[in-house]
Amino acid sequence: MLASRAHLAKQAAVFSGCGWWDGTDIHEAAYTMYHLSRNGARFQIFAPNQQQMHVMDHMRMQPSSSDNRNMMMESARFSHGQGMMQMNDLSKLDVNSFDAVIFPGGHGIVKNLSTFSKDGKDCKLNNDVERIMKDFHRARKPIGLSSMAPLLACRVLPNLEVTMGYERDESSRWGRWPNTNMVQAAYVDEKNKVISTPTFMWETDYHYHYIFDGIGNMVKHVMRMTAK
Amino acid sequence: MLASRAHLAKQAAVFSGCGWWDGTDIHEAAYTMYHLSRNGARFQIFAPNQQQMHVMDHMRMQPSSSDNRNMMMESARFSHGQGMMQMNDLSKLDVNSFDAVIFPGGHGIVKNLSTFSKDGKDCKLNNDVERIMKDFHRARKPIGLSSMAPLLACRVLPNLEVTMGYERDESSRWGRWPNTNMVQAAYVDEKNKVISTPTFMWETDYHYHYIFDGIGNMVKHVMRMTAK
Repeated sequence: MLASRAHLAKQAAVFSGCGWWDGTDIHEAAYTMYHLSRNGARFQIFAPNQQQMHVMDHMRMQPSSSDNRNMMMESARFSHGQGMMQMNDLSKLDVNSFDAVIFPGGHGIVKNLSTFSKDGKDCKLNNDVERIMKDFHRARKPIGLSSMAPLLACRVLPNLEVTMGYERDESSRWGRWPNTNMVQAAYVDEKNKVISTPTFMWETDYHYHYIFDGIGNMVKHVMRMTAK
Repeated sequence: MLASRAHLAKQAAVFSGCGWWDGTDIHEAAYTMYHLSRNGARFQIFAPNQQQMHVMDHMRMQPSSSDNRNMMMESARFSHGQGMMQMNDLSKLDVNSFDAVIFPGGHGIVKNLSTFSKDGKDCKLNNDVERIMKDFHRARKPIGLSSMAPLLACRVLPNLEVTMGYERDESSRWGRWPNTNMVQAAYVDEKNKVISTPTFMWETDYHYHYIFDGIGNMVKHVMRMTAK
């Protein structure tokens, strides 16, 4: 029933590059696209047509000095060139054309879509990301977030309840992070229509597939709220 | 039962970069890792520590002239730096340490792991890929292949039966490609222990999740044969 009712809903997914250390986490992005497709959603993928903060050498876990990459060009590695599988410029994402928006995690959240990695709680958001967060929230359309992505929403929307997988409750001006003791879970803020799941914020080495479940639960809640 | 018996089996997955046009398809790689994890396998991921043939602009579908990338460095974008999630040099992959090997697809198969994109049926394989194909086949250990990857096995192993999703049977010196009319299916050559699934060789726009199922079936057959 979920799938059939949500069939006409159109979802947007926002990426920030291709790779967990300098862009969007590959696993979170691929699983988001899988769960949207499996549940009968129509979706489009977006990224800013702007340079990444830097390029990380994912073997040595250190920045590569000789290289620079564009978020939209790298995010296009998730695309397949046609239909739902083509990459779009984030500046063209219009809240009136979509029923929900999802931000998978990865360090691109704190390096590319915001200045959090440099500025912490005083960070600035990418202009389009800030516009999109505010527009979807104002329109009462669901916002799905995984891993670090809740930081973006908490920076510009008031009084959210989200999870980033912290072991203890932590309250701050960033919003409340209720205890979530399973990485498979999604935390649902029904009032604000904001759904979050911790994914790789948890130790997952031998339970790597749990992040797949967490993203699946997040996507299902987004689609449930979209279908209302 | 499958999961518990196969629990001790150790699987190797071989990548050739990060992106379907110049390396390993992101979706196929992420789904391979997911299905291995979900089915209780232990796995390690590998790629050649060598330059890619080229870098593709995935927006414009044309080569980027200003850039070169290393297969292992880019494949490390699939890793998470610890345990099963760390990237390894393909030259260190020893058949005695693993029970099966899987090659996800993407154009890296014909550009980086072989010279097929230039030389067609007379292509050469990457030395380590040829060694690994022959060693696993000789040791009667399963070889899993998706999308274009069957080309690699057919080039160096005799008389295989594989699928690449062709609509009609096509017989040639490359081996036989029996008709497979569902992208979710895996084709099993029990005698040679070679399992193949077509994935993106099929039109999948509105059935994108079917490739997830095809990879799942391929992985399950690999693990069934591993557990014997």
